[in-house]
Amino acid sequence: VSLGLDLLDRFDHLIRDLGYENRSEAVRDLIRRKLVESEWEAPDAETFASVSVVYNHHTGQVLEKLNSLQHDSYAQVISTLHVHIDHDNCLEVVVLKGQATELKDLAEQMIALKGVKYGDITMGTTGAHVS
Amino acid sequence: VSLGLDLLDRFDHLIRDLGYENRSEAVRDLIRRKLVESEWEAPDAETFASVSVVYNHHTGQVLEKLNSLQHDSYAQVISTLHVHIDHDNCLEVVVLKGQATELKDLAEQMIALKGVKYGDITMGTTGAHVS
Amino acid sequence: VSLGLDLLDRFDHLIRDLGYENRSEAVRDLIRRKLVESEWEAPDAETFASVSVVYNHHTGQVLEKLNSLQHDSYAQVISTLHVHIDHDNCLEVVVLKGQATELKDLAEQMIALKGVKYGDITMGTTGAHVS
Amino acid sequence: VSLGLDLLDRFDHLIRDLGYENRSEAVRDLIRRKLVESEWEAPDAETFASVSVVYNHHTGQVLEKLNSLQHDSYAQVISTLHVHIDHDNCLEVVVLKGQATELKDLAEQMIALKGVKYGDITMGTTGAHVS
Repeated sequence: VSLGLDLLDRFDHLIRDLGYENRSEAVRDLIRRKLVESEWEAPDAETFASVSVVYNHHTGQVLEKLNSLQHDSYAQVISTLHVHIDHDNCLEVVVLKGQATELKDLAEQMIALKGVKYGDITMGTTGAHVS
Repeated sequence: VSLGLDLLDRFDHLIRDLGYENRSEAVRDLIRRKLVESEWEAPDAETFASVSVVYNHHTGQVLEKLNSLQHDSYAQVISTLHVHIDHDNCLEVVVLKGQATELKDLAEQMIALKGVKYGDITMGTTGAHVS
Repeated sequence: VSLGLDLLDRFDHLIRDLGYENRSEAVRDLIRRKLVESEWEAPDAETFASVSVVYNHHTGQVLEKLNSLQHDSYAQVISTLHVHIDHDNCLEVVVLKGQATELKDLAEQMIALKGVKYGDITMGTTGAHVS
Repeated sequence: VSLGLDLLDRFDHLIRDLGYENRSEAVRDLIRRKLVESEWEAPDAETFASVSVVYNHHTGQVLEKLNSLQHDSYAQVISTLHVHIDHDNCLEVVVLKGQATELKDLAEQMIALKGVKYGDITMGTTGAHVS
C-alpha cells in the first residue's frame, strides 16, 4: 500500500494515541470494519447487533413497551443486560442476531419509544467472514 | 422552531420510516442526542458506555488480555455480557461507568488488541441531565 | 387442603417473613417448585438453568477452560454475565437451555474445574408447564 | 484425613461422575462450599448472590414490580440479565452484592411476587476468603 508521507505521519500519530502496537494491526482493523459495514449493506446476511437504550422507567409504559417489542421478536433477541443507573434511570443493552434490516428496524422502534432518552445501535458481525 | 417546508417534508418522511409517532418525539430525541454528545465532550462528567467486541477466542491470548484490561479497571466495568457466537467467535458487550475520557481510553485499548476482529463504543449517559 | 392448626400457624409465620401477601400465593409457589423439580427429573424435557461460578482468573487456565467448555456446548449456552469482583476474582453467571441432564453435566464440569472456588446450579424452567 | 474405606469408595465413585480429576480437588470444593455457607451465616459480611426468576410478563404488573424492587435497592443490584424465553415467559438473573441478610430479603421479595412462577437464590461469595 502506497500512501503520502504526510498522511502516513498523521495516521501513525493517531494509532499510537489509540494504543495500537503497530501500523499493520491498525490497517487490518480498518479493513475489517469496512467488511462489517458491507455485511450490514447486504441485508440478507445473518449478523449481530447491540442496542443500548437509556430511559426513565417511571415514564409512560416504556418498560412494558420495550419488553413487548423484544418479546415480539424473541427469536432475534439473545439476551438483554439491564443496569439500574439510579432510582429512576435504566440502561439496557440488547444483543440481537438476525438479518441486518430486521435488526435495524427493531432497534429503531426501541429508540423511537416515548420515554427512551437516548439510544444507539452498534453493528456487529458473526465474525465468520472477518478473519 | 421555524424550518423550510422542503426540509420539514424530508424530515417527516424520515421519522415515519424510523417509527416515530410524531415529530415532537423525534425532535426531542435529536436534542437529547446532542446533550449526550456534549456530556462526552466534558471529560470530567460521569457517564456510561457500552463497548462491543467480536473476537476469535483461539487467537493469541485475546481472552486473557481482554479480561486483564477489564480487571485492571474493575471500578469502571459494571459487567460484561458474553455471547458464544459459534465454536470460535465471541461477542462481548462491556458496560462501563466513569469519566468519558477514561472510558474511551479503555474501549480503545480493548478494540486495538490483536485478535479483536471488530469493536465499537456506544456513548451512553446516566440520563440525569437528559429529561 | 386440610392441615393441622399448628403446622398452619408455623407456615403462616414463615410466609409472612418471606414477604408473601397471602397463603394461597405461597402454596402456589410450593406447587410450582415441585413441578419444576419434576421437569428436571424428566431428563428429555427442554429447560433452563443458571450456573454461577466464582474464580480467580489468575489461577491455572481457568478462564480459558471455562470459555472452552462453554464454546464446546455453545448451542446450550445462551449468554454469560461476567462481573469483575476485584482485581483477582470473577463471578460468572451462565444461562443454559437444553435437556436437564445435559445442563447438569455441563454445570458440573464447570464447577469441578481447578481454580473455580465456588459454583452452584439453579434449576430453571421454560415456564410453559407452570402456570 | 482418615475416612472409612466404604465411604471413600462411594465418594470416589461420585466425584468421578461429577467430572473431578482427583480427590483433592473435590475435597477442596467441599471445604470451600462450607466456607461460603458460613459467610452467609455471618450476616454483616459483604457477599454476592444471583437470583433467578421465571415469570409471565403479561401477568399483573410483575415486570414493573420486579423492576421497582430492584431500583429501590439499586446499590445492591449490579446488573440483570434478561432472557426472553418465548412470547410470554421471561427468565431474569439478577446479580446482587451486599450483606447476606439484605440480599436474601430482596431475593425473597422478588420470588414472592404474584406472577413469578419460579425463583431461586444462589449464594455467592466475593472469593476473598476462599482461596
